[in-house]
Amino acid sequence: MKLENVKRAIEYRQLIDILMGNGHADIVLHRGKVINVVSGEIYEADVAIKGKYILMVGDADKLIGDNTLVIDVKGKYISPGFIDSHMHFESSMLTITEFSRLSIPSGTTTLVADPHEIGNALGPIGIKAMADEISNVPNHVHLVIPSLTPDCPKLETAGYDITSKDMEDLLNYKNIIGIGELQGFSNAKHVYRNTPEIIDDLLASTTYAKSIGKIVDGNAPELFGSELAAHIIATGTRCSCHETTTKEECIEKLRQGVYVFMREGSTQKNMAECIRAYTEENLDTRRLILATDDMVAADLETLGHMNEIIRRTIKEGVEPVKAIQMATINPSEYFGFKDRGALLPGYLADIAIIDDLESMRVEAVFIEGKLVAVKGRLIIDLPKYTYPDEVKRSVKCSKVTEEDIAIKSNKSYEKVRCIGLIPDQNLTDTFEEELRVNGGIVLPDTSKDALEIVCIERYGRTNGIGKAFVKGFGLKEGAFAESVSHDAHNIIAVGCNIKDIVIAVNRVIEMGGGIAISSRGKILEELRLPVGGLITDELDGHEVAVKIKKLEDITRNVLGCKVHAPFMHLSFLALTTSPKWKITDKGLIDVNNFKILSPIIE
Amino acid sequence: MKLENVKRAIEYRQLIDILMGNGHADIVLHRGKVINVVSGEIYEADVAIKGKYILMVGDADKLIGDNTLVIDVKGKYISPGFIDSHMHFESSMLTITEFSRLSIPSGTTTLVADPHEIGNALGPIGIKAMADEISNVPNHVHLVIPSLTPDCPKLETAGYDITSKDMEDLLNYKNIIGIGELQGFSNAKHVYRNTPEIIDDLLASTTYAKSIGKIVDGNAPELFGSELAAHIIATGTRCSCHETTTKEECIEKLRQGVYVFMREGSTQKNMAECIRAYTEENLDTRRLILATDDMVAADLETLGHMNEIIRRTIKEGVEPVKAIQMATINPSEYFGFKDRGALLPGYLADIAIIDDLESMRVEAVFIEGKLVAVKGRLIIDLPKYTYPDEVKRSVKCSKVTEEDIAIKSNKSYEKVRCIGLIPDQNLTDTFEEELRVNGGIVLPDTSKDALEIVCIERYGRTNGIGKAFVKGFGLKEGAFAESVSHDAHNIIAVGCNIKDIVIAVNRVIEMGGGIAISSRGKILEELRLPVGGLITDELDGHEVAVKIKKLEDITRNVLGCKVHAPFMHLSFLALTTSPKWKITDKGLIDVNNFKILSPIIE
Repeated sequence: MKLENVKRAIEYRQLIDILMGNGHADIVLHRGKVINVVSGEIYEADVAIKGKYILMVGDADKLIGDNTLVIDVKGKYISPGFIDSHMHFESSMLTITEFSRLSIPSGTTTLVADPHEIGNALGPIGIKAMADEISNVPNHVHLVIPSLTPDCPKLETAGYDITSKDMEDLLNYKNIIGIGELQGFSNAKHVYRNTPEIIDDLLASTTYAKSIGKIVDGNAPELFGSELAAHIIATGTRCSCHETTTKEECIEKLRQGVYVFMREGSTQKNMAECIRAYTEENLDTRRLILATDDMVAADLETLGHMNEIIRRTIKEGVEPVKAIQMATINPSEYFGFKDRGALLPGYLADIAIIDDLESMRVEAVFIEGKLVAVKGRLIIDLPKYTYPDEVKRSVKCSKVTEEDIAIKSNKSYEKVRCIGLIPDQNLTDTFEEELRVNGGIVLPDTSKDALEIVCIERYGRTNGIGKAFVKGFGLKEGAFAESVSHDAHNIIAVGCNIKDIVIAVNRVIEMGGGIAISSRGKILEELRLPVGGLITDELDGHEVAVKIKKLEDITRNVLGCKVHAPFMHLSFLALTTSPKWKITDKGLIDVNNFKILSPIIE
Repeated sequence: MKLENVKRAIEYRQLIDILMGNGHADIVLHRGKVINVVSGEIYEADVAIKGKYILMVGDADKLIGDNTLVIDVKGKYISPGFIDSHMHFESSMLTITEFSRLSIPSGTTTLVADPHEIGNALGPIGIKAMADEISNVPNHVHLVIPSLTPDCPKLETAGYDITSKDMEDLLNYKNIIGIGELQGFSNAKHVYRNTPEIIDDLLASTTYAKSIGKIVDGNAPELFGSELAAHIIATGTRCSCHETTTKEECIEKLRQGVYVFMREGSTQKNMAECIRAYTEENLDTRRLILATDDMVAADLETLGHMNEIIRRTIKEGVEPVKAIQMATINPSEYFGFKDRGALLPGYLADIAIIDDLESMRVEAVFIEGKLVAVKGRLIIDLPKYTYPDEVKRSVKCSKVTEEDIAIKSNKSYEKVRCIGLIPDQNLTDTFEEELRVNGGIVLPDTSKDALEIVCIERYGRTNGIGKAFVKGFGLKEGAFAESVSHDAHNIIAVGCNIKDIVIAVNRVIEMGGGIAISSRGKILEELRLPVGGLITDELDGHEVAVKIKKLEDITRNVLGCKVHAPFMHLSFLALTTSPKWKITDKGLIDVNNFKILSPIIE
């Protein structure tokens, strides 16, 4: 038995004593409108709290003693704290501590994070460093870990190759509750045809995870019918998907028992489409769950977090209690949390006080019975967590030269392949262009919006460099580079000329990870991301938001970039699990056909 | 990792192979109306089966090969097999094998049984014998065990005192999935006031159970507010109640997070009242579950089992899918079954084919992909399980004499206390009567329907005999006795004169357990119950039904008994957890005041 079980039993004994008449509550939230996500009702009642726990919900007058703090919440709503069921801290570029600072005041008391990015960059040492940081924060944070890095071992190089060999070690490490999204398996047909041995490895990992009571997220974008069934079985039958994008796909997933995490993040917004399975078809909602996946710091600051996602869900025509179930009891049941996700006797007193269900503005937040945030501000100190040096040494490659990244030719014109960026999507288009060759080098052409894109293996394992062209950024001068590129997180760069690309890339290498913008031979602006090349431990959430905005303004105003969020868009051009063409350190990838293409059409 | 996990992984690998195009299903149930309890829909689809498992639900045409058995089920309903979430085999007097023979053809594929009765009679050896028998039957049977026997140690004597000391041994024994109903704690206030040390012991047991991933049923009749909250916390927060009898109680339970097992058995019928929390108040149904608690063999034969309970639930105005959820996915979620309760990829192919949703007549039943019942009859052989001799030696007391059971007095009349039987209820009334004394013995008086009732400790531990009077049976002559008396299962007897009572009791002792009817100094009829004094391993389900009917007919026609099911009614007059007066081997029990009363009013 774990120590925590014993501790809880002792604490529970005291709660029973009080409820039987021998003692009083510490706090009573008096006469609020209780959001009961189990019975599916909203009604006036009290919530009595002792220590970390809820004593009871109902008429708590008898539990009020001389030392009980009675808080009048008449007219306000009392909700269980919210759960974000699938998110990546790395997307915010914030540490867990800084993300928590921004998300707790919005009522989010539990986060389930997939350290997929740091897992690709650093392997177990990166994942464990995050797991360690979790013990520092007051909210409940859990990790679901990758069972495979990189996503497609034949098509890209990550900093560490996670396989089933790492599962026993990782799944038994503190704060790790299961296996996260199975990126590489999203397209089951591809994996099966090209790398069936990966299915064997996956099944070993998921079987082990389930055998020790851990969860397996799965994820299954665009899978239907027998392929979806195969994928569900490979995950051990109880899996989730957070990349369901259409109503029809949502219906198919629910019918096959998948927990659909309706994604509503900073860029990918799928809730409004998925929720139609309920608002139009009246399907059972108990396996519908809300999640953000990727949130940027600025949105957390200005829009809020799960409260905002719930607000949008209600606006789509969902009854407020049902919408709140999707961020409380539904994920709690999925993850098997036995002490959260509802206001019940003996559950942790994780509570959000809400002004009204239209704005979903959060007035106050309690975590484990302690008031931690009031009117959008954290009122407690968060201790600083210092990341170990080893996670700050993820960039191990040598600097590059113009020679390294040039696309060569001995003709005077070449027909080339261009990845076609589609704003707000991970999918890409494909184009062909004819480009001029000068001095044996195929030149990008801003008049055709055909820029060069490169991906440089940054872990010192292969020194591979993938090269191709891209349309859609609209840059008129300069280049930018970053050590964030999903999911292997090599250095990716786009630019109008190879000189500026080299300058930006080499600045990222010098910084040991980060983002750099160059033009006319000079660095214009930069952001250091020391932790795994993905996260800053030097700036707080607000500062990161300001810095990113500044970097984005420069790409737009100086370089002429015409897509918003250019760094996020660039970073997803390396994602080998979504069609059609992508770039990795191994080259231009034809995702649909699982092969590497030459940038030059022969 | 358990061997079963490895086995399943290997089997799953083959399923994935087939779904990806390399192989075919064994069976396809073609174009039935699938009852999808996850999405909450009914729609036309196929169910493809391979080995023990469901491959997929949907369009399975591609999975049909030359050797696939295609069964046309057009127009029929395909439902997941049903789960009875709380039942006692002992109530049917049948072995697990014989109960299964009667219940499987009605579509019940999973039974969760509480061996509470044999636990009281025999302790761990009785419980383990039942757990062993489970491995013999084709359906899924699980045990939830008592954490305390007898229910009220201060007020009665059982054959074995189960406490937390037995939990490690029992909870890790095969086929045992948790702790069952906490009878003694139903009235939390009483336990707390009179035996608070029992709360400590309980909390140790439930904490241990939860720590190893086991469930705790709880049970909480008539508890509200803070007392209910205390009880819920004592069970470790996630508990069920199968003795909720009113709509208001059901609402209160659901609000506090209790899983309400709506009981609908042979005598206690609570579903129609509980379901009003949904049909009238529209509360969320996901924690509403159907269970039978106590079923007699005759009802299983003539009415059916869970299919009949579902039929009644639909008749109360519940949508068929929702009613079926209450006997499939809802209990599956509660118990944490990961492979049953819905028709999903990789789940066990436990399936009921239903003719129509009005009759809920079950046409065929599959268990683990194997056709086991057709048109109400089992089509497979059930191997015989032989109970060990030690469980057949539960009656260890000496025979009694008239002297032993006489209620003495030196007056000529006495005012006495009479338990008042209430038909179809566990509760009793209380009455006073004046009775004549003859030869120093207070005499029962059939003209006042004041009969003598006795309870004889049968385990050779105390030789205690409780004596009192009872009104309500209406006997005109004779007596009957049985070794079934909830929950300590001492020998209980009622009769018009002490001579016939002695004859009946001593016959039960001679048989080593059973039921005996006597009149005018002779035994009229009897049923041997060798296993724990509770169950016959000599008769099959049909024979038991016939025998019980014969015994009941004699009590009615010869003895003049005016209550139906007299043996069940008598057996509950020893139940010390329901008010007001009861009888145990320690005497007449005032349940509300937790004390022992004299049968004679001083």
